[in-house]
Amino acid sequence: MTTKNTAILLISCPDQKGLVAAIADFLYQHNANILHADQHQDAELKLFLMRVEWDLAGFDLDLNDFEQEFAVTATRFQMQWRLARSAYRPKLAIFVSRYDHCLADLLYRYQTGELNCDIPLILSNHTDTQWLAEAYQVPFQHIAVNREDKADAEKTQLALLRHHHVDFIVLARYMQVLSADFIRHYPNRIVNIHHSFLPAFHGARPYHRAFERGVKLIGATSHYVTEVLDDGPIIEQDVARISHRDSLDDLIRRGADLEKIVLSRAVRWHIENRVLLYANKTVVFD
Amino acid sequence: MTTKNTAILLISCPDQKGLVAAIADFLYQHNANILHADQHQDAELKLFLMRVEWDLAGFDLDLNDFEQEFAVTATRFQMQWRLARSAYRPKLAIFVSRYDHCLADLLYRYQTGELNCDIPLILSNHTDTQWLAEAYQVPFQHIAVNREDKADAEKTQLALLRHHHVDFIVLARYMQVLSADFIRHYPNRIVNIHHSFLPAFHGARPYHRAFERGVKLIGATSHYVTEVLDDGPIIEQDVARISHRDSLDDLIRRGADLEKIVLSRAVRWHIENRVLLYANKTVVFD
Amino acid sequence: MTTKNTAILLISCPDQKGLVAAIADFLYQHNANILHADQHQDAELKLFLMRVEWDLAGFDLDLNDFEQEFAVTATRFQMQWRLARSAYRPKLAIFVSRYDHCLADLLYRYQTGELNCDIPLILSNHTDTQWLAEAYQVPFQHIAVNREDKADAEKTQLALLRHHHVDFIVLARYMQVLSADFIRHYPNRIVNIHHSFLPAFHGARPYHRAFERGVKLIGATSHYVTEVLDDGPIIEQDVARISHRDSLDDLIRRGADLEKIVLSRAVRWHIENRVLLYANKTVVFD
Amino acid sequence: MTTKNTAILLISCPDQKGLVAAIADFLYQHNANILHADQHQDAELKLFLMRVEWDLAGFDLDLNDFEQEFAVTATRFQMQWRLARSAYRPKLAIFVSRYDHCLADLLYRYQTGELNCDIPLILSNHTDTQWLAEAYQVPFQHIAVNREDKADAEKTQLALLRHHHVDFIVLARYMQVLSADFIRHYPNRIVNIHHSFLPAFHGARPYHRAFERGVKLIGATSHYVTEVLDDGPIIEQDVARISHRDSLDDLIRRGADLEKIVLSRAVRWHIENRVLLYANKTVVFD
Repeated sequence: MTTKNTAILLISCPDQKGLVAAIADFLYQHNANILHADQHQDAELKLFLMRVEWDLAGFDLDLNDFEQEFAVTATRFQMQWRLARSAYRPKLAIFVSRYDHCLADLLYRYQTGELNCDIPLILSNHTDTQWLAEAYQVPFQHIAVNREDKADAEKTQLALLRHHHVDFIVLARYMQVLSADFIRHYPNRIVNIHHSFLPAFHGARPYHRAFERGVKLIGATSHYVTEVLDDGPIIEQDVARISHRDSLDDLIRRGADLEKIVLSRAVRWHIENRVLLYANKTVVFD
Repeated sequence: MTTKNTAILLISCPDQKGLVAAIADFLYQHNANILHADQHQDAELKLFLMRVEWDLAGFDLDLNDFEQEFAVTATRFQMQWRLARSAYRPKLAIFVSRYDHCLADLLYRYQTGELNCDIPLILSNHTDTQWLAEAYQVPFQHIAVNREDKADAEKTQLALLRHHHVDFIVLARYMQVLSADFIRHYPNRIVNIHHSFLPAFHGARPYHRAFERGVKLIGATSHYVTEVLDDGPIIEQDVARISHRDSLDDLIRRGADLEKIVLSRAVRWHIENRVLLYANKTVVFD
Repeated sequence: MTTKNTAILLISCPDQKGLVAAIADFLYQHNANILHADQHQDAELKLFLMRVEWDLAGFDLDLNDFEQEFAVTATRFQMQWRLARSAYRPKLAIFVSRYDHCLADLLYRYQTGELNCDIPLILSNHTDTQWLAEAYQVPFQHIAVNREDKADAEKTQLALLRHHHVDFIVLARYMQVLSADFIRHYPNRIVNIHHSFLPAFHGARPYHRAFERGVKLIGATSHYVTEVLDDGPIIEQDVARISHRDSLDDLIRRGADLEKIVLSRAVRWHIENRVLLYANKTVVFD
Repeated sequence: MTTKNTAILLISCPDQKGLVAAIADFLYQHNANILHADQHQDAELKLFLMRVEWDLAGFDLDLNDFEQEFAVTATRFQMQWRLARSAYRPKLAIFVSRYDHCLADLLYRYQTGELNCDIPLILSNHTDTQWLAEAYQVPFQHIAVNREDKADAEKTQLALLRHHHVDFIVLARYMQVLSADFIRHYPNRIVNIHHSFLPAFHGARPYHRAFERGVKLIGATSHYVTEVLDDGPIIEQDVARISHRDSLDDLIRRGADLEKIVLSRAVRWHIENRVLLYANKTVVFD
């Protein structure tokens, strides 16, 4: 996989006539070779969202000057916007407890280049997954978390994250609830996998409850973490059909496959700057 | 579609050695030509469930004598059991309000013979769907339901159901909540379609809430009606993928297709005696 | 369902810098309130495809003058383009033989307004489905087709289609192969449903062959008809899981549900001008 | 995961009255505690297939004597049958070339105990995957295969397989076609993954051809290898939806996830003795 050298512009603003013309003109004036453009208009909220990606070869504006140059357009249309470069590999920290299927899956995809990021750190409240970290040569830190010293553990975690300049966090079946204070350090930058089709079975032991309820499909949901448990914006979900022949263990086993797929999609989309947020929802320009 | 002339035996009992041998022996002694047999054992609850269907051609036991002959075996294994004949067409009453997609779908499947039942009655609190009833030549009764006279309306409904010897009821997007008293007249014989992936979005306006929550899949659930709203044993569920490009109207439109499919499967399975109940769940021997 | 009063512009041309800017500028100059815009770039073929839909309220260019005004832009970028109005209801002729499930489904969706078209004509080589046409008050014409008089039958069909100003044709399980000559009258305007996951099981009796091959999923494919049988551009496909418990009759029954869903999606997308063609493929801007 | 101590009896024979009674009686006479039983009757071929699994605790027949004791019943009903023990871990050899996603997935599932087998050998015509073999501590053998020395290479492979008492082989994206002679050594014991929805796109480069054909879903198929390429009995298939937004690279990436899931299911079912063969099809008692 060769690294692309592209810029990605993400825009969110009130919908208004002339928006697309203004953005397209700006890019054309600077000789941008647009590779992908996707936009969405929310008719009810009168909101406009856009993702546009262009080749930096031939683009005649230094990206360091982009903000200043784009400011007139951005202000005129009250844009919230962000510029990203595909060449920048965001720094990901993975939090994990004992279940290792999502970790193993992410590491494999990282190793093959499917996930275009760096992983400077795996943090765990257990040591069970250390062997995997070592197999993929990723630094591993064990930080025990107990009820009484949770605040201290989070302090240590935050220090490590800062030290490694971590851009975003993935909770790969991390079984501890993060404090609101911790979450505020990484707003919309903590991606979780929940092992149910949210909002069904939020909270603890979703497979057990799905089994008891007798549902005919199980699900997995990847979402950004907010202060309300399992309530953040959903990035991706998927389901698998089950039947009475499936025991609780079968649900857990089959769910693990769902979790891996759903989480890895969400992580890839986050890395590739494909996720925009509004109204506690996501737009995924995939 | 030619009508099969088969008998179907449905059994539920504590799991025990010798069960299958006893049942198989009994049928073999009477020269049964078994066409399908399916069984399930719930390891946790130590429960055994079975559905066996055999050709009545050559079977040397009069079905009127079946109960008496089978009693020894049934008692020995503490069976709850039921015998059904495929030649009997159960009598179905459909309740409907204004949305007619499920009704239209059921009537079409009834007309083609896919649903091996009689429909002596469509009951509605509106007259919007009367034209469909007429097109398929099914009797239609309009019974208005208002908050204050609901009990009276239910009395009228129950009288009509008794008059037509109705075996089971399908709520094809019937927008009134039935009283506990009404439900007790048709225990596990009222099939509902709920327009969400239960237990998510139980209650009112599920598509609106799904849209607001930003889920990536919508669902539909068919279940038996119990006194607790949207809480009865689930017969069938399915989902469809949506994206930010789908408006609320798109969700409603696409959900309608899900509802039709899910409800029609549940109704067919009920008619074909494929659904067994235990622990507020279903086993579907499809 | 209220009719939208929008214009839809469909563009296909070599990819080039400044394209989007030019189109967006043109629309902005005429005060277009863009409701949806979607574009696709085929990197390999260096092709650009776009669908843009805007509200005609406030648009200050008479659509009758659109072609002339847009010509400069269109020529500059070598565009193939087409303008459609959402207020125009295209005229659909449905061809059907004996299987009526797709016909019944289309008629129901037509009656509810989901399909924003007129249906001046149902053509059949049998009379089995006449009752359905009558129930939905759609004109029905029986034209027998035999091996020896097929050319004559097609002449009669073509005359009827012309007489009713038919815009496009749907083959709703029409069991006759149309001649190349017939097809040339309606290029990319004949939508077929094939009862397999193409290119698997193209040609006759796909369910039988799927059953014999022991596949674990069955499918349905809707495509534009070209001179090569079952080889035209695919508009939509879907599949359903089957198992050894499903007989050939089960496959046919379950496939019928797939066929209805797949065909109705394709027909709706065609009507809503969401399908663009290139390289024997479709882009569906849904 | 604790190892179960069960016996599994797999039966295939002409359908006949008294079959189930005879089998159930036999097991009951020896005090078998049946855990799962599943059966299938092919109405057309008049064939009966059964899988029954029972706890060996309390079973009063030594499994070494099973054949002799069961012979009377087996002969009476012309059974083809096989007895397996869940405690026996079959020996699996994995063949792989350069693509490592299926290998990595199988090794992870092997390591967690999901695949209840031993893997004495990974055979590859390349050395790219050696690091994975080492990470999971599985012996790896590199055997180069060239057009001219293929027969020699196969001889070496067969010698290694014999040496390790290999029970079955998985081709985890092994890019060499095995000779008919090789296949005859492991009839119905070589499991392949093909990266298309067979029978569509059998042979080489299926993703390229799927991309060119413009299909709306891609698939993967796991099947037993027979002398005719990609034509053996299908064990499992699955598909994923794609759109015009997916490039060929996206198809390959997304297909890899399908391949892993489909192959791992097939391998698990094979290991757990859940697959029966008849008429070039499989029955999977899952």
